[in-house]
Amino acid sequence: MALWENNVRTVEPYVPGEQPSFPDMIKLNTNENPYPPAPGVAAVLKGFDTDVLRRYPKPDAHELAEQLAKEYNVGFNNVFVGVGSDDVLGTAFLTFFKGRLPILFPDITYSFYPVWAELYGIPYETPAVDEDFRIRKEDYYQMNGGIVIANPNAPTTIAEPLSFIEDIVRHNADSVVIVDEAYIDFGGESALELTKKYENLLVVRTFSKSRSMAGMRIGFAIGSEKLISYMMAVRNSYNSYTMTTLSILCGAESLKDRGYFTKTVERIKETRKRSVPELEKLGFKVLDSSANFLFVSHEKAAAKEIFEKLKEKHIFVRYFAKPRIDNYLRITVGTDEEMDRLFAALREIL
Amino acid sequence: MALWENNVRTVEPYVPGEQPSFPDMIKLNTNENPYPPAPGVAAVLKGFDTDVLRRYPKPDAHELAEQLAKEYNVGFNNVFVGVGSDDVLGTAFLTFFKGRLPILFPDITYSFYPVWAELYGIPYETPAVDEDFRIRKEDYYQMNGGIVIANPNAPTTIAEPLSFIEDIVRHNADSVVIVDEAYIDFGGESALELTKKYENLLVVRTFSKSRSMAGMRIGFAIGSEKLISYMMAVRNSYNSYTMTTLSILCGAESLKDRGYFTKTVERIKETRKRSVPELEKLGFKVLDSSANFLFVSHEKAAAKEIFEKLKEKHIFVRYFAKPRIDNYLRITVGTDEEMDRLFAALREIL
Repeated sequence: MALWENNVRTVEPYVPGEQPSFPDMIKLNTNENPYPPAPGVAAVLKGFDTDVLRRYPKPDAHELAEQLAKEYNVGFNNVFVGVGSDDVLGTAFLTFFKGRLPILFPDITYSFYPVWAELYGIPYETPAVDEDFRIRKEDYYQMNGGIVIANPNAPTTIAEPLSFIEDIVRHNADSVVIVDEAYIDFGGESALELTKKYENLLVVRTFSKSRSMAGMRIGFAIGSEKLISYMMAVRNSYNSYTMTTLSILCGAESLKDRGYFTKTVERIKETRKRSVPELEKLGFKVLDSSANFLFVSHEKAAAKEIFEKLKEKHIFVRYFAKPRIDNYLRITVGTDEEMDRLFAALREIL
Repeated sequence: MALWENNVRTVEPYVPGEQPSFPDMIKLNTNENPYPPAPGVAAVLKGFDTDVLRRYPKPDAHELAEQLAKEYNVGFNNVFVGVGSDDVLGTAFLTFFKGRLPILFPDITYSFYPVWAELYGIPYETPAVDEDFRIRKEDYYQMNGGIVIANPNAPTTIAEPLSFIEDIVRHNADSVVIVDEAYIDFGGESALELTKKYENLLVVRTFSKSRSMAGMRIGFAIGSEKLISYMMAVRNSYNSYTMTTLSILCGAESLKDRGYFTKTVERIKETRKRSVPELEKLGFKVLDSSANFLFVSHEKAAAKEIFEKLKEKHIFVRYFAKPRIDNYLRITVGTDEEMDRLFAALREIL
């Protein structure tokens, strides 16, 4: 090892879901939306004058932040925009969790949380969810350096009611509480309104799932002006211009089409609904989902084996080789057609 | 102050150049390119199927990294792609400067370096450039935790020869040496070839200046596979997908058009050349520029006053209220027409 390597930050990186590309594949492994973005997005690209690209984007992602404020009925200064919700969450960890007490998040949740904590040297503890994968709110009433709750939780798909979230926030006036609502558009109650009541509550969302724009990398947070201004200062200390001009304009345009948004989300919820009995008929236990994916376990067959046999058929779902959930599969809700092909493949395999 | 604020990382953010938007303005304050991106970029956007956006981008920015490897005659694993060179440099600071010895960079240089050092708690020292704003290479022969040199340097516009850079690298086998070549396409000798000889040398570049794509946020680094893999691990611990699908595809396309690139850069260099005597006639001292901007000081008039009077006329240049350079202006090289309007305005003011 060379001496310069002594100064290197070595980390165990997060491993994202595979991004295979077979023409015939069914890709149900990264919770992408099966429908395209709002038609207005295509119109923005078609009419775009590329000369604009020689200029830096607006550092405050103006059009997008403004449209978000309008959509969610908050002020412009209550909105933070980032490169997907991972960028927003990463910035929030770096900004708000500088204390010595451990931050708290469930043992079964989005697997990026411990990765950010390691990266920035943030101590953390992970209270165990119960045997039904439900978060126990009392676990979050101890002294801590911050709280992160995904609602609906991932990969469990379970949403907790707003009163549950508010109980946690109310017990933690001395910490920043982050509620990660990446999947809230597919079910559950948003904590957005609570951000007006609690200045230490940050709600994080994304365009990657319900708005079909994973490729545009857009996430956002809503919170008190104080919270947002702290995040802005850290962001501006890292990179003044994180959002591309096209993400700003296409993101803003997508928000304007509420009809398309509602229709797309409803279609996914309908497909989710009819997929549950189909999977149950095949012998799967299916957790009650408020997300655009299902978390399932088979009564007889091992999850890992099913995962691999599906892969052979170019059907990709997600398997986590992790304690407590290593006999579960996470299956993104695709189109009805994709789900039917999945069920047929499962019938063959089982 | 609320108790939760005790855990907040408070920082002095970098202040980017203004982004004014008057229809009649001449914007020479953020070193943007006066010419549009390569025509192929418009073609990519016109022909783009937005359905692709529902998918996550390729985490390794595949098409772009591949094209960069081809263009610069290095391997795919020698390339790191980021959201502008600020993201690339920020990631490099976080990755390579974890030691206790101070990192070194000149007192007069890109003003983001101390900001990243503060953000990540990296100790640093800033050896003074000499009275002609030249870097003294011997200052970088002491023990250190890392070295950062911009070449050409900003805002001084001065390029040092390759032998000078190699001397610094050779004296620092135990540190990572970053050479920030944001402006190298406009003059000076690149250290790219040296990355094959020194595994601790990282060269950083951007699409924001010479490729007219500031709005697409594309920067990159080239270095040994070891250096790049360390950066990748840190990047993947922060955000698996930082580059939008459109930045990846448009960036790759832009690289293919070498003719357009060369023509655009040459036009800017010609305008720079004819601007020097014009400014000298007006009483300015002009530093010998290898960049797409000029660093000038007037024999009689105060820089701050000229800056403000130009602003009144909607001509924007950059002024830094900083020790040693507070009587200088940084003027981006625009089109011949824009420069002529600048000279006319200066004639009026002086």
